[in-house]
Amino acid sequence: MLAAEYTGDRTITVEEREPEALRPGEVRVAVAYVGICGTDLHVFHGDMDARVTTPATIGHEMSGTIAEVGPGVDGWAVGDAVTVMPLDWDGTCPACLAGNQHICQNLDFIGIDSPGALQQLWNVPASTLVRLPEGVSLRDAALVEPVAVAVHDVRRSELAPGDKAVVIGAGPIGVLIATVATAFGADVVVAEIDANRRAAAEEMGLRTLDPSAVDQVAWVNEWTGGAGADVVFEVSGAAAAVLGATSLAKVRGTLVVVAIHSQPRPIDLHRLFWRELRILGARVYERPDFERAIELVAEGAIPADRLITRVVPLLEVASAFETLEAGRAMKILVEVAR
Amino acid sequence: MLAAEYTGDRTITVEEREPEALRPGEVRVAVAYVGICGTDLHVFHGDMDARVTTPATIGHEMSGTIAEVGPGVDGWAVGDAVTVMPLDWDGTCPACLAGNQHICQNLDFIGIDSPGALQQLWNVPASTLVRLPEGVSLRDAALVEPVAVAVHDVRRSELAPGDKAVVIGAGPIGVLIATVATAFGADVVVAEIDANRRAAAEEMGLRTLDPSAVDQVAWVNEWTGGAGADVVFEVSGAAAAVLGATSLAKVRGTLVVVAIHSQPRPIDLHRLFWRELRILGARVYERPDFERAIELVAEGAIPADRLITRVVPLLEVASAFETLEAGRAMKILVEVAR
Repeated sequence: MLAAEYTGDRTITVEEREPEALRPGEVRVAVAYVGICGTDLHVFHGDMDARVTTPATIGHEMSGTIAEVGPGVDGWAVGDAVTVMPLDWDGTCPACLAGNQHICQNLDFIGIDSPGALQQLWNVPASTLVRLPEGVSLRDAALVEPVAVAVHDVRRSELAPGDKAVVIGAGPIGVLIATVATAFGADVVVAEIDANRRAAAEEMGLRTLDPSAVDQVAWVNEWTGGAGADVVFEVSGAAAAVLGATSLAKVRGTLVVVAIHSQPRPIDLHRLFWRELRILGARVYERPDFERAIELVAEGAIPADRLITRVVPLLEVASAFETLEAGRAMKILVEVAR
Repeated sequence: MLAAEYTGDRTITVEEREPEALRPGEVRVAVAYVGICGTDLHVFHGDMDARVTTPATIGHEMSGTIAEVGPGVDGWAVGDAVTVMPLDWDGTCPACLAGNQHICQNLDFIGIDSPGALQQLWNVPASTLVRLPEGVSLRDAALVEPVAVAVHDVRRSELAPGDKAVVIGAGPIGVLIATVATAFGADVVVAEIDANRRAAAEEMGLRTLDPSAVDQVAWVNEWTGGAGADVVFEVSGAAAAVLGATSLAKVRGTLVVVAIHSQPRPIDLHRLFWRELRILGARVYERPDFERAIELVAEGAIPADRLITRVVPLLEVASAFETLEAGRAMKILVEVAR
């Protein structure tokens, strides 16, 4: 079978290799499609070399069908269409014992900390499988994982129908959060300084504003009758966006920090105090997020055709990273079977 | 009657003046004791000159008895022992309409935005009165307002009995939060770099640690079985404390920012994300906080004798500010009737 391997130094190659032996409790998945995300790009850039053991097969946004069921696995059969929730927790740390397995203190994120989906036959613990219903194409199902991220962020915010939400940043996760928040009944605006990203968001039916052209605080105040937004999602990763985000939220409003900020960022703690704001961290997802994400994809609530810029065969995986790096695509899928 | 007046330029004088006329809905309170707090000290320093109209009679931590009941006021009688919750909201802004009157978008904080308690006869809206039960001395009752701040912070944190809490900073509010959290059933440690403040906290029965002498992250991890603290209260106002606070909290733990940070502060957003932390702003109090605070004072749960460093007569009010400024007192009360 073929497998992509990150070997360091911005290099991803495709190699022929033997499938790994299937262990008890595992299932072998014939991978159909793998989406490339910002974290994969960070790996490609070498930013995560301290965490990733090379050569590394990465990839964690995927769809496929079961090719073989290992010993001790019940409830799954060859041919079942699946996606994978790529989290493997220890079940024994304080976070797991408190019910927060998804952010286990010793979490194995499959596709970063252990081998991922950019290979034609991928062995995973059966506990990570999530069933795909009929009627969801394997192509669209490769979006379930990033949609689950967005569902997790929206659920974590406790956004209610009728709420007004600001999403800062119109990258792939930003537009998914805006789309999911809309599906949850919120009224949403996406703040984005890049004209191309704004245009792409608008084509998906999202309202946008350009914070470099309008006073976004005044805009949000007018939009919300002087109250401020119920929820603000920070998805840009920019220091200035974080500093300004607290000014957009209503009294007792919520700011969810979704973007990964590797540096400490200045936060307006006086505003936090004055309005009794709430700032929440949000990471990965839980099984209900995956299940809701699959429903949203099945219902057609996710504009998959607009999100998926291109599908490339596995042998062209390196070009997918280069295209994403150049900012010329929203989401590229790798068709692994081809 | 005598009244203290802040006239700007670090000057507080005591003047003889006529009591103001009593308006409908108001009650005239014969003020007994007024505590001086950090905010009063900020006013004295001129930090709040943009907000305070001079000459200003400040003061908002107080006790007294009703001297006269204005027209249209029911349920109160001359001689009733009271304290005042010094908040006057408009009732019409979005925050009020959402039930958050205590942080009304146009809040009048009585004692800063309108005349305060450092006068022998003080007219207040009857709606601000909180009844003192028999058995609570007027002296101890002057602590109810700062205790209500602490109750508000602890209730906002959703701290549960058996939780482990870290309080950063052993000033008056820090030790009150630690005391209230203990009364709510938490196991508490106070982190304080100043040896005198640590000693004072220990004399009140609080456990302390010196973050300049021990690795506080390692200490908290060992104390909590590797989990981290359920709740961290940032009461120091120091940038370094804010930056370090996120490392003390467990997965899904809570950081309550109590101290007023007038500058944006760097926050470890990667830790916020990694552990799905929650950061909460907390400001002033609501009526249930005042009522619970009175119960705690009545039960003897608040070490009033240790908190009140000194009681000075009104004519010596300026010396109270100077002593506090020099860091030579935890809490000074002004005996206004004297």
